[in-house]
Amino acid sequence: MKRSHSGTQLAEQNQNRMLRMSENGAQERILTLESMNPAIRRVEYAVRGPIVTRAVELEKELQQGVKKPFTEVIKANIGDAHAMGQKPLTFLRQVIALCLYPELLNDNKFPEDVKQKAARILQACGGSSIGSYSASAGVEVIRQDVAKYIEKRDGGIACNPDNIYLSTGASDSIVTILKLLVSGQGNSRTGVLIPIPQYPLYSAALAELEAVQVNYYLDEENCWALDIKELRRALDEARRHCDPKVLCIINPGNPTGQVQSRKCIEDVIRFAAEENLFLMADEVYQDNVYAQGCAFHSFKKVLFEMGPKYSDVVELASFHSTSKGFMGECGFRGGYMEVVNMDPAVKEQLTKLVSVRLCPPVPGQALLDVIMNPPKPGEPSYKQYMAEKQAVLGNLAEKARLTEEILNQAPGIQCNPVQGAMYSFPRIEIPERAVKLAKAEGQAPDMFFCMKLLEETGICVVPGSGFGQREGTHHFRMTILPPTDKLRILLERLKDFHQKFLQEYS
Amino acid sequence: MKRSHSGTQLAEQNQNRMLRMSENGAQERILTLESMNPAIRRVEYAVRGPIVTRAVELEKELQQGVKKPFTEVIKANIGDAHAMGQKPLTFLRQVIALCLYPELLNDNKFPEDVKQKAARILQACGGSSIGSYSASAGVEVIRQDVAKYIEKRDGGIACNPDNIYLSTGASDSIVTILKLLVSGQGNSRTGVLIPIPQYPLYSAALAELEAVQVNYYLDEENCWALDIKELRRALDEARRHCDPKVLCIINPGNPTGQVQSRKCIEDVIRFAAEENLFLMADEVYQDNVYAQGCAFHSFKKVLFEMGPKYSDVVELASFHSTSKGFMGECGFRGGYMEVVNMDPAVKEQLTKLVSVRLCPPVPGQALLDVIMNPPKPGEPSYKQYMAEKQAVLGNLAEKARLTEEILNQAPGIQCNPVQGAMYSFPRIEIPERAVKLAKAEGQAPDMFFCMKLLEETGICVVPGSGFGQREGTHHFRMTILPPTDKLRILLERLKDFHQKFLQEYS
Repeated sequence: MKRSHSGTQLAEQNQNRMLRMSENGAQERILTLESMNPAIRRVEYAVRGPIVTRAVELEKELQQGVKKPFTEVIKANIGDAHAMGQKPLTFLRQVIALCLYPELLNDNKFPEDVKQKAARILQACGGSSIGSYSASAGVEVIRQDVAKYIEKRDGGIACNPDNIYLSTGASDSIVTILKLLVSGQGNSRTGVLIPIPQYPLYSAALAELEAVQVNYYLDEENCWALDIKELRRALDEARRHCDPKVLCIINPGNPTGQVQSRKCIEDVIRFAAEENLFLMADEVYQDNVYAQGCAFHSFKKVLFEMGPKYSDVVELASFHSTSKGFMGECGFRGGYMEVVNMDPAVKEQLTKLVSVRLCPPVPGQALLDVIMNPPKPGEPSYKQYMAEKQAVLGNLAEKARLTEEILNQAPGIQCNPVQGAMYSFPRIEIPERAVKLAKAEGQAPDMFFCMKLLEETGICVVPGSGFGQREGTHHFRMTILPPTDKLRILLERLKDFHQKFLQEYS
Repeated sequence: MKRSHSGTQLAEQNQNRMLRMSENGAQERILTLESMNPAIRRVEYAVRGPIVTRAVELEKELQQGVKKPFTEVIKANIGDAHAMGQKPLTFLRQVIALCLYPELLNDNKFPEDVKQKAARILQACGGSSIGSYSASAGVEVIRQDVAKYIEKRDGGIACNPDNIYLSTGASDSIVTILKLLVSGQGNSRTGVLIPIPQYPLYSAALAELEAVQVNYYLDEENCWALDIKELRRALDEARRHCDPKVLCIINPGNPTGQVQSRKCIEDVIRFAAEENLFLMADEVYQDNVYAQGCAFHSFKKVLFEMGPKYSDVVELASFHSTSKGFMGECGFRGGYMEVVNMDPAVKEQLTKLVSVRLCPPVPGQALLDVIMNPPKPGEPSYKQYMAEKQAVLGNLAEKARLTEEILNQAPGIQCNPVQGAMYSFPRIEIPERAVKLAKAEGQAPDMFFCMKLLEETGICVVPGSGFGQREGTHHFRMTILPPTDKLRILLERLKDFHQKFLQEYS
């Protein structure tokens, strides 16, 4: 079936094609593990890795009546609030339902503020339909609403709607900014500083873009605080082999749940200015702060309060999402980023780049608009909206406290306070014998632990090795999202299992 | 503000950082046109390029009362049906509104089949909420519905739901498959054959991935048919400088509107098998076929009807979307791909890759489900659904005919029949003097024409150079989507303008 070609330039070509023939001469596949993009092969994403695949299998086995030591798989692997039983906020869903099916604008069941909000969004859409493409950076009115929200959040510091780009969840815009930033070869390849432990979107995106991942370790002994000395160590080391020009911050922290102090944010901004680093601030958990004495400070606000010496020069992109907070609307894939001090010529490139995918999903944009622009005091939906919002946040605060309390009762588990976000990242003791057994099976020791935990209790958490951790330490990430009674059972079971695990392998 | 570093490895580093200082010693931006990712800089996307930016400006000027030779900008640059006044299908929107706001499941206003469909979708979502993440490849029940739809479309040829991946519009999965396929360096770099004229997502994605774009020209004299001899020419030439292993087909054609004959599809499949090419079939316009004697044949169906000699070996990915067809729901960013004969190990890699972005937007998945699984005869919504669907398709067929008819009346414009899809890609004569003037301004001659057209008539179409065309020929792409009366005005104005343009520059 092969045609022959002449010309020496074809030699390597033909060799490649020959490699696609197996030994018996049969045609092999074109796309194989060996021939595929090696950068994609190197990508890893623990939050949906083998542990989750196994959890889904176990659920199916339970449905088929297979006997297990548990009756239900509890998935605490991913920050998916609705899947854990949280109800959507009434106002949000009412507005979007009216946007989708505008006949409902005439239905007396819906309050006036719902109708006004929906009518306003529809008017901003092409042909008054949420089924039209929007501008690539998002519907203009929604970008304006986001800008107003940010101004209010930041105590009046100006926000230009032209600096707002709506996105398909926060992941989308994080990857987009990284794409713009990565360049160079060899020692000049772009290095990107990320916290360890990190949210594995970062390592996955850097692997795909073939950028250099530069790890700075958060200080576990100090409630996962960011330590500028450690940042400097990481930067100085990185400069020997790459061109570190980006610094990523996740605040509140994922998977570590810490909330950065204002002073620490100032230090980071000063460091970025001195060391010429582009700042990326992942602030998707900005509404999720629980601990006494902790408060969310946006990088944008702190930057501008530090004065023009910083606010005129530091390049910053910050990210937010509809998936977390009190709304937990992950499925809509809504989000935005704000860029500050971005070169106008680069902004044109950014606009061009996002236009290739046409636009972020418009239902997600509409949902974001409602979150940015909620009912005001006196409006018909105000009280219910605030009550629902505060119930969710109050409940999360209670579960954050409960998680820390119960886990710390277990010998061999140490758990920092969950100051914010939706996760606990406890450190677990794993006996030497279990470590050796795991290694013999080619598994990370905490993967070994998490798999055993899943098989024996039905609890699905993610091994710390998927997020990164200091050599020789072991952790897992669990969400605090299951309903309180179920969370309590989960934590007790986890505690008991770990105790048994320690005994079994000691 | 700079710290000094020692070590020779730092030399290049420091040089890079020095480059970030301007001549007067002030700190320059980190992210500039010069420092940014050069691959992203090379990306172009004409459908939303400078012509559209200018159209939006003109709209604003009109709103501000600036006098123009026209009262309205007509955007015929993008296939955005709802923006052009097409109404969403009632059944689709009813089901999604109920998914979003399930209280409506108790509302007697909605027919039973709407309620059943919505309840079924909700049951398949985590926590019965469309706000939960789905599995990364999409909600399992929806993947099953897609598989059943494909089986029915293809006359019973089996479709495995495990081969279905839902996506954020078709663009998303097209880029994902290309990402997997691209590898190698220099003469071994992956080459991807694309039709010229093409939909510029392809050239944009290939630029970003630094793959080699290999052009094969469609035969304008033969109604933009695909010519196997031309495919062979392109492939043979490409083998001298890259490793061509992917062949992209767009059927029905965008921007060219042709519908491929069954025989031609067979020839392409045979060619792919002989030449060891991975096939990508962009079939997002599969519902948009208008011309007498034309029919849509899916690559999947033809492949399997050619027997195991082909269906056992040819690797194929085919793509569909909620954005086009009769529904035109672009804003939802819904779509799917089916992969055939994909190496199971690569499928695992594909699943891993899509999991990094968590999941496609769930409202778009739900909408796709309704399209795949529409009301059946006898169900309450059946008649209205079919009437609305057929009205849209009948109207598009009429506009396809009208476009061809009026444009071909103009001396100097030649327009192939719009057999399918949503576009006409007429060839236009541009006088030598206009070509020279354009080149002097650094513009493509058809950009020069389209800009003048926009400024004088308010009609926004996209220059052919943005899609690719044979050297020395000039075209533009226009959609056939404006309402019939407006389309007629647009076509007459276009005809008159071109005549004037010929006179002015001859």
